[in-house]
Amino acid sequence: MTTIRVSLGPRSYDIAVDEPGGIGPFAATRLKGRRAYVFADYNVAALGERTLDELGRAGITGRLATIPPGEASKSIAQLAVLYERLAQARTDRQTAVVAVGGGVVGDLAGFAAATYNRGLPLVMVPTTLLAMVDSSVGGKVGINLPAGKNLVGAFHQPAGVWIETATLTSLSDRDYRAGLAEVVKYGMILDADFFAWLESNADAVLARDPAAVARVVARSCELKAGVVAGDEREETGLRAVLNFGHTFAHAFETAAGSDGRHGEAVAAGMACAARLAERRRMIPADVTARLIGLLTKFGLPSAPPAPPRPDEWLDAMRRDKKAVAGRLRFVLPHRIGAVDMIDDIPEDAVRDILTEVGP
Amino acid sequence: MTTIRVSLGPRSYDIAVDEPGGIGPFAATRLKGRRAYVFADYNVAALGERTLDELGRAGITGRLATIPPGEASKSIAQLAVLYERLAQARTDRQTAVVAVGGGVVGDLAGFAAATYNRGLPLVMVPTTLLAMVDSSVGGKVGINLPAGKNLVGAFHQPAGVWIETATLTSLSDRDYRAGLAEVVKYGMILDADFFAWLESNADAVLARDPAAVARVVARSCELKAGVVAGDEREETGLRAVLNFGHTFAHAFETAAGSDGRHGEAVAAGMACAARLAERRRMIPADVTARLIGLLTKFGLPSAPPAPPRPDEWLDAMRRDKKAVAGRLRFVLPHRIGAVDMIDDIPEDAVRDILTEVGP
Repeated sequence: MTTIRVSLGPRSYDIAVDEPGGIGPFAATRLKGRRAYVFADYNVAALGERTLDELGRAGITGRLATIPPGEASKSIAQLAVLYERLAQARTDRQTAVVAVGGGVVGDLAGFAAATYNRGLPLVMVPTTLLAMVDSSVGGKVGINLPAGKNLVGAFHQPAGVWIETATLTSLSDRDYRAGLAEVVKYGMILDADFFAWLESNADAVLARDPAAVARVVARSCELKAGVVAGDEREETGLRAVLNFGHTFAHAFETAAGSDGRHGEAVAAGMACAARLAERRRMIPADVTARLIGLLTKFGLPSAPPAPPRPDEWLDAMRRDKKAVAGRLRFVLPHRIGAVDMIDDIPEDAVRDILTEVGP
Repeated sequence: MTTIRVSLGPRSYDIAVDEPGGIGPFAATRLKGRRAYVFADYNVAALGERTLDELGRAGITGRLATIPPGEASKSIAQLAVLYERLAQARTDRQTAVVAVGGGVVGDLAGFAAATYNRGLPLVMVPTTLLAMVDSSVGGKVGINLPAGKNLVGAFHQPAGVWIETATLTSLSDRDYRAGLAEVVKYGMILDADFFAWLESNADAVLARDPAAVARVVARSCELKAGVVAGDEREETGLRAVLNFGHTFAHAFETAAGSDGRHGEAVAAGMACAARLAERRRMIPADVTARLIGLLTKFGLPSAPPAPPRPDEWLDAMRRDKKAVAGRLRFVLPHRIGAVDMIDDIPEDAVRDILTEVGP
């Protein structure tokens, strides 16, 4: 259907969305070596096998290993298992890692690829909406520590991203909706027209109409690719716009159990950020209302998880990777399609938001 | 005494060798943040404390943790301990990691710095000759796996390297001599004049005459800095010259127990490489003789560890990070001060060398 270029000089790469031909030829033209190790989420093991077959027909041979599903796999222990498998396979520097699955597999296998032999080529095959529109694009890979999510990681750009939106048909309704939170985010931070399109086409998107899904994925990738191209390693501040809603979201996720979805936390976080912006008179009430309206239409939360734990959340925010010397930073909207980085927000204002909106 | 610049564009940095003023002002002008975590080898804990004090006087506050000495600390388990300490200290992206010790601490703490929060500033304070002339310069950091040394790692350039050659006075004779192997290597691969200077001044170098030691360290850093500047991430092949003797050495180290020193393996590996080059008529016999003469003068081995295990060593060489699709690559001299990368060497020729020179 379409190919999106992520422009990063010598590390540029393509995101193929519903392109014909299969992953074999796509990978073969983008890899120097002819060996691969496919790591697939256990839930998509069949797709992992098909991927290995298609790579084989294109002359790329290798092995397949499955990874237990769930966030718990983004651990040092599971990373050590992947390292061991790569060592057993006598992986050399041209052996590619192919990550088939959602964000967990992409982040974990991607981090193994970033660090084994000081860096292996990586091909991403995201199978969840969240992974397609967010985690597989931009080169961020990593694992969790007991102290917090994504505390360990690297920037490691893939050699290519292969997306088949048809794989989304098997995604649970909850996971599909959670992925839409990041899609809404792209509209809010960068593209008012896309936001309006989502409002107008919410039913088709929710019904997973193939053309609507393809547009959602392709436009989200385009928008993220543009940001990443301007700030590959989060150094200029440009990439920080992608964190809209995420300072809140990470706090909710750190404090919450493992049951929540990242997208649900992001939805609640974006709603909190909009309320904070409204309180600072950066946006009128109708912007908050449109955001919450679209999130609600998509079945996403617009308030933090109950019960409210403002102290715990604030504590987690101060520990956030993006905090500097404990000072909180927020990405706040000043209209639909544009955001600013604000770092002079008093903690009391944040606490009020966290307390008010708790159900 | 002297400062050497490693020119890597935005990642350029200085190596200060015996400069006045202490590490405090050196670090303060090179770090954005004012927080640090000092990781020191247990054997140089006192220097770790002094480093923390000097940083404190320059306005950089932080904590100190010691790391058990020995190669066994370059493990996933010890890495997890460092991550945990960094998390407890509420490390943000401007908090610097300061690595005080030899190659083990530099590689381990350096890899933690490369990956925690996707990258922290790193200051190297090498305290062994090997670390001063080799591992602290060039940005290579990493840990070992049960399957092999340095199989996991990253390229992460430090913000600065602070060297006080006076710390070498407490280094054991064996470790000091082992460090000289890499010094001899720089002469062999890049600088015939420096090689000749080492031959003429071997007694002063062995006696650790301060001026001789400072010259050894500064010239070695200069030579390595020049190579690293031309090939930061081992992509152009230029940096491969630094692997002279190392394909053999890594094999000896993989097969041997933990008693050997890296420098001793490198010395034996360089002697093997010279014999291989001589057999291919790349060099006359007197080049091999001069190399072995200097190594012997420095009390270093010129043969692999006994008993010979050619099959095991060859197997390890095929698994080496630099091997591609199992094909062996060697850096071989064509005169003193110049080497070539050769990758068409039959395994039988290598096996002969490995069998012949075993004591």
